[in-house]
Amino acid sequence: MARLVMKFGGTSVADIDRIRNVARHVKRETDAGHEVAVVVSAMAGKTNELVAWTRAAAPMHDAREYDAVVASGEQVTSGLLAIALQEMGVNARSWQGWQIPIRTDAAHGAARIVDIDGSLLVERLKQGQVAVIAGFQGLGPDNRIATLGRGGSDTSAVAIAAAIGADRCDIYTDVDGVYTTDPRIVGKARRLDRVSFEEMLEMASLGAKVLQVRSVELAMVRNVRVFVRSSFDPPDAPQIGVGNLPPGTLICDEDEIVEKQVVTGIAYSKDEAQISLRQVLDKPGVAAAVFGPLAEAGVNVDMIVQNVSEDGSTTDMTFTLPVADYDRALKVLEGAKDAIGYRILQGSKDLVKVSVIGMGMRSHAGVAAMAFRGLAAKGINIRAITTSEIKISILIDSAYTELAVRTLHSLYGLDAA
Amino acid sequence: MARLVMKFGGTSVADIDRIRNVARHVKRETDAGHEVAVVVSAMAGKTNELVAWTRAAAPMHDAREYDAVVASGEQVTSGLLAIALQEMGVNARSWQGWQIPIRTDAAHGAARIVDIDGSLLVERLKQGQVAVIAGFQGLGPDNRIATLGRGGSDTSAVAIAAAIGADRCDIYTDVDGVYTTDPRIVGKARRLDRVSFEEMLEMASLGAKVLQVRSVELAMVRNVRVFVRSSFDPPDAPQIGVGNLPPGTLICDEDEIVEKQVVTGIAYSKDEAQISLRQVLDKPGVAAAVFGPLAEAGVNVDMIVQNVSEDGSTTDMTFTLPVADYDRALKVLEGAKDAIGYRILQGSKDLVKVSVIGMGMRSHAGVAAMAFRGLAAKGINIRAITTSEIKISILIDSAYTELAVRTLHSLYGLDAA
Repeated sequence: MARLVMKFGGTSVADIDRIRNVARHVKRETDAGHEVAVVVSAMAGKTNELVAWTRAAAPMHDAREYDAVVASGEQVTSGLLAIALQEMGVNARSWQGWQIPIRTDAAHGAARIVDIDGSLLVERLKQGQVAVIAGFQGLGPDNRIATLGRGGSDTSAVAIAAAIGADRCDIYTDVDGVYTTDPRIVGKARRLDRVSFEEMLEMASLGAKVLQVRSVELAMVRNVRVFVRSSFDPPDAPQIGVGNLPPGTLICDEDEIVEKQVVTGIAYSKDEAQISLRQVLDKPGVAAAVFGPLAEAGVNVDMIVQNVSEDGSTTDMTFTLPVADYDRALKVLEGAKDAIGYRILQGSKDLVKVSVIGMGMRSHAGVAAMAFRGLAAKGINIRAITTSEIKISILIDSAYTELAVRTLHSLYGLDAA
Repeated sequence: MARLVMKFGGTSVADIDRIRNVARHVKRETDAGHEVAVVVSAMAGKTNELVAWTRAAAPMHDAREYDAVVASGEQVTSGLLAIALQEMGVNARSWQGWQIPIRTDAAHGAARIVDIDGSLLVERLKQGQVAVIAGFQGLGPDNRIATLGRGGSDTSAVAIAAAIGADRCDIYTDVDGVYTTDPRIVGKARRLDRVSFEEMLEMASLGAKVLQVRSVELAMVRNVRVFVRSSFDPPDAPQIGVGNLPPGTLICDEDEIVEKQVVTGIAYSKDEAQISLRQVLDKPGVAAAVFGPLAEAGVNVDMIVQNVSEDGSTTDMTFTLPVADYDRALKVLEGAKDAIGYRILQGSKDLVKVSVIGMGMRSHAGVAAMAFRGLAAKGINIRAITTSEIKISILIDSAYTELAVRTLHSLYGLDAA
């Protein structure tokens, strides 16, 4: 007997037939004797419709009212799924964020979960009742509904799992797990059976769209095992797979991963831009002079590279940013030219960041060098490099995206047989 | 300065443009210095859509889950109207039933309001904030959303008005008031400037669709002045009318009605059926033997007529019921023939109940006789009669509906000049 959280996204609950399908997935688990809490998103398209209404009512609107309107989508789904479960003879009830309560901070529209009292839920689970919980919402300190921001239902699910001490949080999605890289550009991409929290965090931040970054962070901090699987699997199919799990990817502590790979996956992130400041006077406080005004202008700076200055007087400084922020950033830096003291401002758009991720890098030397050689052999020019303990990110021209990802995928032995 | 409740139904908030129109109505009142609480229904069609989903999920479903799903419609409208008001510079916030709270009994799906704590609302109203309240919903004793049953937003509005001590509860609807009779069948029907609670209650029960019966009952018990007016009036038009009110009908205590009419209006109710039991053994308990099994079968018996038996041994018993219950009632009575002890079972469908309503009847003799003579003069056969202090109801063949209503309308001097 285990205690499970099962999370279903908008496409999985898009209409009554699919909600019934979700109910069958849940019934399979209760029939197996498990205690189940389900977290649901709004029906696909619903949230967009509600958001559009709030915008039509006023382009700039009160986030507290936005929350009251938009949270209704999950409310509807939770009630409908509870009904569908009851119809199949499964004892179930819906829970809204304010009923549990899921307490959040005051940042309406993009609130963070502060605390969840899981006691009421656990009591009901022990009585054999399935809890169907509206995702994406909680109760703010002002006693009003607060939503967690788009995609927040993943975070709800992980937070609930932590609060009720669940053995696993199953995320049902439209893919059947986490892959070594994007299967659309590498035909030989393999599904990973297990991946560590740290690796998944890098992969999620770097463009793998499977899970919300915040939910992975939370899972890591609270040590919640997250299992990504397909909601399109037949709900009544036999549950066979690796280590008693059906096909999917388990995101867990690295201690649970027996056979560690040096490199786990190759991620990429499009729509990157790069800006370089040439011959910056190399004096204390210059980095603050560059990045202070950019932060104030809301520019999202990512990689930062500063070379040691050749003669001790000037240096070159390069950073990457989303292409959407590019023009704004140039304007800010032109305005701050005298304050910063640089000679030349250069930049380019249409770049891509390719990343090699793996826990094994920590103990294996030469992983980065292998990547640089591999890309050089294909004539791919590297514009910038940053590394962390478990990843190497390389900025290249976007024209080479597919070639670079495929090259690295083969190079590190990730190709499926 | 007055304290007002303004209630808007589904057609008045059907889309963002209409919601903006409602906001203008509200702004007119706040600009005039009034404290305003607004009660809103779901956007037209929304509730039906939500109800259809719960039915599709399961034909027989948990009323608590139905409530969670269906109450979301009003939640959306309350948030959108608050946004539209803020956009016009009006300080406003939305309130869900559970936030106030509006406490109800446990009858999910058709709950009754038990208690409303108006203190928080009053505090905000005094600060100049408009309260936009989701109608139709409250918080049950189980800490879950409970809805009041279809049309419950009228009841919400009147209950809120009582709780906050409002000077008036304005019901904005798709007609501009209460008429002496249905204007579709009597061209000379007049709008009533004022009508007493008691009269309105009879008119509402008898088929005038302007207001929910429960809301009128509540208004009478709590002495809430209700003003029915059109939401299609231009919101910025000068507010002129009778006694400082714009065009519409004030439903109030009879003490407020200076010039009392003997007859205030003529109502009618279609789809009535009649069943007669002939030669029923006239013994104690016979009425219970007839109506007990009917009540158990959920048959909604309305008028009951029992004649004094001619010879002291048998009597005839007649009652009316909705035509939808007719076949079921006949079956029940056939099954109970021996227990009741009647000779003949007769019935007819396709009847209409026409009612003459007026407070003045209490002090004027001969009002009923006038109706009987009037109908007889037109050759209309009366099938059954019941009377109360302020109304006379007459059952006739439905073919004569229009003729009867027009005849009575003229007869009691209700025709417009």
